[in-house]
Amino acid sequence: MSFINRLIKNQNLSPVKLIVLFYFLAILISTAILNVPLFWQEGQTLSLFDSLFTAISAISVTGLSVIPIDQVFNTAGYFALSFIFQLGGIGIMTMGTAIYLMLGKKIGIRERQLISIDHNQATFSGLVRLTKKILQTILVIELVGMVVLSIHYLNYFDTWQEAWLQGYFASVSATTNAGFHITGVSLIPFADDYFVQFIQIILMILGAIGFPVLIEIQQWLIDRKNRKKGFRFTTFMKLTTTTYFLLLIFGMVIIFLIEHNLAFADQPWYQSLLSSLFNSVSTRSGGQITSNIAEFSTPTLIVLAFLMFIGASPSSAGGGIRTTTFAVMLLSVYNYAKGRQSIKVFQREISHRDTIRSFVVLTTAISLTLIAIFVLSITESFSILELAFEVFSAFGTTGLSLGITAELSVIGRIVIMVMMFIGRIGIFSFLFLISSPPTKDLYRYPEARMLIG
Amino acid sequence: MSFINRLIKNQNLSPVKLIVLFYFLAILISTAILNVPLFWQEGQTLSLFDSLFTAISAISVTGLSVIPIDQVFNTAGYFALSFIFQLGGIGIMTMGTAIYLMLGKKIGIRERQLISIDHNQATFSGLVRLTKKILQTILVIELVGMVVLSIHYLNYFDTWQEAWLQGYFASVSATTNAGFHITGVSLIPFADDYFVQFIQIILMILGAIGFPVLIEIQQWLIDRKNRKKGFRFTTFMKLTTTTYFLLLIFGMVIIFLIEHNLAFADQPWYQSLLSSLFNSVSTRSGGQITSNIAEFSTPTLIVLAFLMFIGASPSSAGGGIRTTTFAVMLLSVYNYAKGRQSIKVFQREISHRDTIRSFVVLTTAISLTLIAIFVLSITESFSILELAFEVFSAFGTTGLSLGITAELSVIGRIVIMVMMFIGRIGIFSFLFLISSPPTKDLYRYPEARMLIG
Ligand SMILES: [K+]
Ligand SMILES: [K+]
Repeated sequence: MSFINRLIKNQNLSPVKLIVLFYFLAILISTAILNVPLFWQEGQTLSLFDSLFTAISAISVTGLSVIPIDQVFNTAGYFALSFIFQLGGIGIMTMGTAIYLMLGKKIGIRERQLISIDHNQATFSGLVRLTKKILQTILVIELVGMVVLSIHYLNYFDTWQEAWLQGYFASVSATTNAGFHITGVSLIPFADDYFVQFIQIILMILGAIGFPVLIEIQQWLIDRKNRKKGFRFTTFMKLTTTTYFLLLIFGMVIIFLIEHNLAFADQPWYQSLLSSLFNSVSTRSGGQITSNIAEFSTPTLIVLAFLMFIGASPSSAGGGIRTTTFAVMLLSVYNYAKGRQSIKVFQREISHRDTIRSFVVLTTAISLTLIAIFVLSITESFSILELAFEVFSAFGTTGLSLGITAELSVIGRIVIMVMMFIGRIGIFSFLFLISSPPTKDLYRYPEARMLIG
Repeated sequence: MSFINRLIKNQNLSPVKLIVLFYFLAILISTAILNVPLFWQEGQTLSLFDSLFTAISAISVTGLSVIPIDQVFNTAGYFALSFIFQLGGIGIMTMGTAIYLMLGKKIGIRERQLISIDHNQATFSGLVRLTKKILQTILVIELVGMVVLSIHYLNYFDTWQEAWLQGYFASVSATTNAGFHITGVSLIPFADDYFVQFIQIILMILGAIGFPVLIEIQQWLIDRKNRKKGFRFTTFMKLTTTTYFLLLIFGMVIIFLIEHNLAFADQPWYQSLLSSLFNSVSTRSGGQITSNIAEFSTPTLIVLAFLMFIGASPSSAGGGIRTTTFAVMLLSVYNYAKGRQSIKVFQREISHRDTIRSFVVLTTAISLTLIAIFVLSITESFSILELAFEVFSAFGTTGLSLGITAELSVIGRIVIMVMMFIGRIGIFSFLFLISSPPTKDLYRYPEARMLIG
């Protein structure tokens, strides 16, 4: 931390600019790595531009791809790629969580006491310990996922090497919500395998639910084991988890209602329900599929696009505007319509500042995605639905696609790369990135009233 | 006023609910009127449901139609219809302006002094005088428009009766931004007539720029004539007018850049520019066309849809989220990114309350239009672009369409009717309509910090 602190001071870099700088570096290095022919299958070639796209997609754990990953890369390439999205996924969790903790340190004494209790902050100190903790947790999850999947995959693949490779890649890709696959067709070969889908759902949820949430659950379990009382989940944890699961159920129900007699018509109701759940989980950021989603009806695709735009929880491997932004925004509108002065939730109040922030994030996100769709509508010849779906998928770092990624023009690919990058660093960081240093109000003007809406 | 005040007190009705009640009544009466066979051409028939659609479209001055107006109604019917959208247009201007004035009366003494100066409020008192003033202004504009257009129309129509009928209808429809037409094809017959388009542009702008703005310009002209000094335009007037014209220019430039070599390819550059300006003005709420807009390319249609969503200025005949909402929202994001504490514009500050309000309006508008598009995607078999265009047109009470209105299913028509109604009364009124009475904070909770975006 002290090295980073000094760097920030000396170079006059804001922490956000530093994070973005790290990301740029990571993308450059990853592009160089993926462009090494050593990692390609025989006879395959990969342009620098396609390497860049793949690197950004991996670092941002999106999973959109302009190349058939399984055909271009060899086994060493698979490992290289998985290391890149592993780092991308863990990187953002660490940095997101660090920002979350730093936020708690910039506030008044009275509030700090309250928040200190609220956060169970005593459990961690310092970025290094935090990174270690995140790394440990994620690796344990991935390891368990790998073992379980690999053993099961012995039923599918000829050699145990192939089964373990597939199990390893699938587990890391699901846990980091990367959405890459080396089956060539995501999880479509396991469309009837409830076990694989169940494991994938668990892994994707653990990766998308937010690292602060995982820490709190861990602490809660430890306290329970030690019969230590007084542990309280934070309001943040309650709000983000509730929103996460409400969106999950919302998505599942809507997809089930629409597709049960359409895309899932030949499935029994429980498989149809599982498929609906799987797709709902996938839109949170996982990006895996068990069927060709282009066969879904338009209303379903609208819902999927909407869910991708909201994305995962903060400090998770997912993107989008984040669950908390969506929740605070909904609560604000609800409370405003109710004529209430403050936003109350779980016996806490949401600050004015966070309310404005969530609206700013929403507005910027809508503006950016709209501009992206507009630009694509000029450069590409796909339908608005296909283009919007691609943009929301990139912004949500989800990686679902109606199959147009590889057919995008150069400008189209650049637009998608920019959206993946912004989706990854988050709107909030993006705004600080393009902003000037904060200024103090040197003078004030009288207020003017406006007619709004 | 005292009668209305008593009604509000006795019936425990909020002013907003009263306004909505008035609108409901107006719609019912208009439906009944339009359903009288006396107003139909021989051999024509009009169902009650289609009468309802036409009535809502007229009261909300949208202009979307499920029937060919020119073929269904006779001359008496044209007059009946024009009276209905005349009342709709003037009604909303009156009520909007009244709300604007009332806002100025509910605030503290110090602020009231500032605003009182700022608003030049001394110029009007009482709703009746205000209505009279609006009626006068609009009728004068319409009269001038009618005389100019009718005389010019003598070149087009065989009889002077027909020319004056067309001139009357066109002038009222343009000034109230109703968007209805009895030519059967809007202004397409005048596609090469720069004079007609110029007059239409002037009339549509006067109707969409907001009545408070018209009052202020009037007062400014009177003061100038009397060599009276000290007049200052209000911040609201400056902001809404600047936004209005910036959007106008933005729309014109974008449409020109995209369509100059496409839809306008056979036009000289100045005609192409005028066509671009005309379409840009039209999206503000006018809803007239000089060519088949379905022939525009997709990027242009996206821009048109975006402009319709924003809509016209508050207290005008137009709908949408309104120019001020859009301006305050953009200024907020800009100031937030700049790290500023307050939003300064034209040497005034925009209150926190108005900021939140504009975000609430935006969020609700996006949610409602999204739900509408989702429902239409289930019930209709048109492309997302066509459906979204129709929904934004209804919400912006613009009335432009890619030609699907008459082909909508019953549920589709109901959705469009609801959107026209909400677009008309405004999101702000809509929120108050569905909300419970304001409550006081009886207790407070400590603040919880959130990770946003
Ligand atoms: K992903
Ligand atoms: K209109």
